Amino acid sequence: MNVDLGNALAAEASPGISRENLERLDERVAGAHERIEAGIEAREHGYAALALPETVDTDAIAAAVEPFSDSEAVLTVGIGGSALGAATIADALDSDVEAYFLDNVDPEQVTTLLADLPLASTTVNVVSRSGTTAETLANFLVVRDAMADAGVDWTDRTFVTTGESGPLRELADRHDLPSLPVPDGVPGRFSALSTVGLACAAIQGHDLDALVAGAADQRERLSDSLFDSPAYAYGAICYALDVRGASVNAMLPYAESLETFAEWFAQLWAESLGKDGLGQTPARALGATDQHSQLQLYRAGPRDKMVTFVRPRERADRAIPETEFEALSYLGGTGLGDLLDAEFEATEASLAAAGRPNVRVEIDRVDERGLGELLYAMEAACVLAGELYGVDTFVQPAVEWGKNAARGLLGGGDFPEADAVDAKRTLRIE
Amino acid sequence: MNVDLGNALAAEASPGISRENLERLDERVAGAHERIEAGIEAREHGYAALALPETVDTDAIAAAVEPFSDSEAVLTVGIGGSALGAATIADALDSDVEAYFLDNVDPEQVTTLLADLPLASTTVNVVSRSGTTAETLANFLVVRDAMADAGVDWTDRTFVTTGESGPLRELADRHDLPSLPVPDGVPGRFSALSTVGLACAAIQGHDLDALVAGAADQRERLSDSLFDSPAYAYGAICYALDVRGASVNAMLPYAESLETFAEWFAQLWAESLGKDGLGQTPARALGATDQHSQLQLYRAGPRDKMVTFVRPRERADRAIPETEFEALSYLGGTGLGDLLDAEFEATEASLAAAGRPNVRVEIDRVDERGLGELLYAMEAACVLAGELYGVDTFVQPAVEWGKNAARGLLGGGDFPEADAVDAKRTLRIE
Repeated sequence: MNVDLGNALAAEASPGISRENLERLDERVAGAHERIEAGIEAREHGYAALALPETVDTDAIAAAVEPFSDSEAVLTVGIGGSALGAATIADALDSDVEAYFLDNVDPEQVTTLLADLPLASTTVNVVSRSGTTAETLANFLVVRDAMADAGVDWTDRTFVTTGESGPLRELADRHDLPSLPVPDGVPGRFSALSTVGLACAAIQGHDLDALVAGAADQRERLSDSLFDSPAYAYGAICYALDVRGASVNAMLPYAESLETFAEWFAQLWAESLGKDGLGQTPARALGATDQHSQLQLYRAGPRDKMVTFVRPRERADRAIPETEFEALSYLGGTGLGDLLDAEFEATEASLAAAGRPNVRVEIDRVDERGLGELLYAMEAACVLAGELYGVDTFVQPAVEWGKNAARGLLGGGDFPEADAVDAKRTLRIE
Repeated sequence: MNVDLGNALAAEASPGISRENLERLDERVAGAHERIEAGIEAREHGYAALALPETVDTDAIAAAVEPFSDSEAVLTVGIGGSALGAATIADALDSDVEAYFLDNVDPEQVTTLLADLPLASTTVNVVSRSGTTAETLANFLVVRDAMADAGVDWTDRTFVTTGESGPLRELADRHDLPSLPVPDGVPGRFSALSTVGLACAAIQGHDLDALVAGAADQRERLSDSLFDSPAYAYGAICYALDVRGASVNAMLPYAESLETFAEWFAQLWAESLGKDGLGQTPARALGATDQHSQLQLYRAGPRDKMVTFVRPRERADRAIPETEFEALSYLGGTGLGDLLDAEFEATEASLAAAGRPNVRVEIDRVDERGLGELLYAMEAACVLAGELYGVDTFVQPAVEWGKNAARGLLGGGDFPEADAVDAKRTLRIE
């Protein structure tokens, strides 16, 4: 993996950072690194996620899901960080075992999905640290019911990943369900490389050790200088550009298989850094498609953005046949991948020519190892950025209010927040 | 359809607009409306899109696709506005005819998709106004080749939507392919309710007249006051909040079926308004999922955002079974839709309680009529916003540079932009 900051320097872009100020920022990176290393060593809350390459037990995960090696499909029931890591891996890597996700409570989507699934050969992978997440439990109850209706014994096909106590843990104990623990100190959005993200990957037959090896490689590169660590280089440049005005970070992978990665990144970035009035807004995009959608804004709109390009250096190409269209004859003999790469470089240069800051992140291939590098590096980048902003990276207090209100509205207790819902001011235009 | 601005007023939110200033803005809306009406009447470039409820010929569309009434699947090959309208309709509405899209040039995705499709019973719907879009033509060449390999006569299964001249029009003429014209004056991102978006919908068996009737309903409501038109109310409030600091507009539908709508909106908004250093950045989101991802940032990050909630007032619900989990007993007897609606209201109130501006947009149902209302209203809102900003809403000049560079890189001619690609400055960290 490498990160190229050339197009984010002040000589090229506005906002941009001068080489001199980047050196000054590097002194702060050294201090932040010391803090992060101490946190990793002590397995402190949150920082423990960056210790996962050493602490995760891939053999235990493989053993726990072994009863489901006959699966045609795996249905992960979880929301937010309990689903996005697994979904990112599933969408990036090919598998004969199809992966599905119930990460919302839309009744129409749930009904459509359950009608299509081969329930008798589907593994249901229920994920919730607390075991009380309303959306996840509600979906699980519906799925369990659908299995019963289909004559499938749900206790044969359910796998649970949850904390040491709570309703899901009790359920697993009562019915002797195969299960894995959620590791201590690893917040949901940092859990892709733990049991939370890897159980689904194991059921799909992916190489967990290669995923972890990629992560370990980036772990080893964490150092006291951003110039020696792709992860820190990325975290530092995002921070530096944000405080100089790039309040939006458009994540633009040039590989369809990384589309969900952009979503995972958006959660990591938004929930970790979005607090105290601070935090860069992640925008999820996709190359080359969004050249025909967002590029106009990125190149000619307000100077409040940076663009992060991500691409694999190698991919399986597909030849473009020779054509009778004269205007397109230059395409004949090239491949779709050549076209995609040319558009990548052209779009990057197009933003640079307009003085719009952008960063290039490259992995060798979209495979287990490359993905492990990418996920770990982005997590470490986020932790570094949190240190530079000085925020509490590993909490998300602002979501509690709404949870209480929703619970109150559903008759789940007396919550003053629910009363505020009825007091809504309206100015309605029909 | 209705739009509720209550939570965007200065008394509730910051940024927000006072009732008085909203009245003042309404005077500008009156002037803009006059300009828009004149443009619609004269079928001027761009404005002609808002005349589509009167000008689109749904019978002609239905007749043109009639040869493909036996389709099991429809594969739209197009990019940007040539795909997003059709994709929005396809994802919103149920159909027995599966819709697929090649709107990118990722070789791995193309190969995976083509391996899965029943090519003999798939209609290929190629869409490009100019007939020269590199990505679309390259994908079409690959698809045509795959059909030949599968022993399918591509001329039997190809439908073309394109302009009056160009390579695709010539192809249609030469092989006598069923085809439709792209209407004059309708830019791609405003073409969902034209032949461009409706051919795919017709092949899927959707009710085109109901889609157009929904649009016509919103067309009739365009008036000289934002207080009488949901579309203008939405366009005006976005503009008013943006110039007061809400430079990001998070589009947050509470229905999985509207996930692609958020993407369509993002193109509409970004390409139309993102110019001259202006333009609000659209962020695509999804409720309730993104409460566990983006809400922390929306509620506690910088005050540079507005949130647009979109929901259907009615949907088919799915009961949540009674549960042995005591902590979740309040959910038993309710439905997933009740839970989703409670979360919608709770999240809206949660943002209001934090003084974060938000707007509620409601349609009756996610059906043809509701979708027609929503798409038309958002287009009219965008045109109004363009008038208020004073930008050229219907052009996208900033994407040309990159197109030239990519073409040069691929040997398609001598373009100075391609030379800039090689001159890229690097600061690479490995």
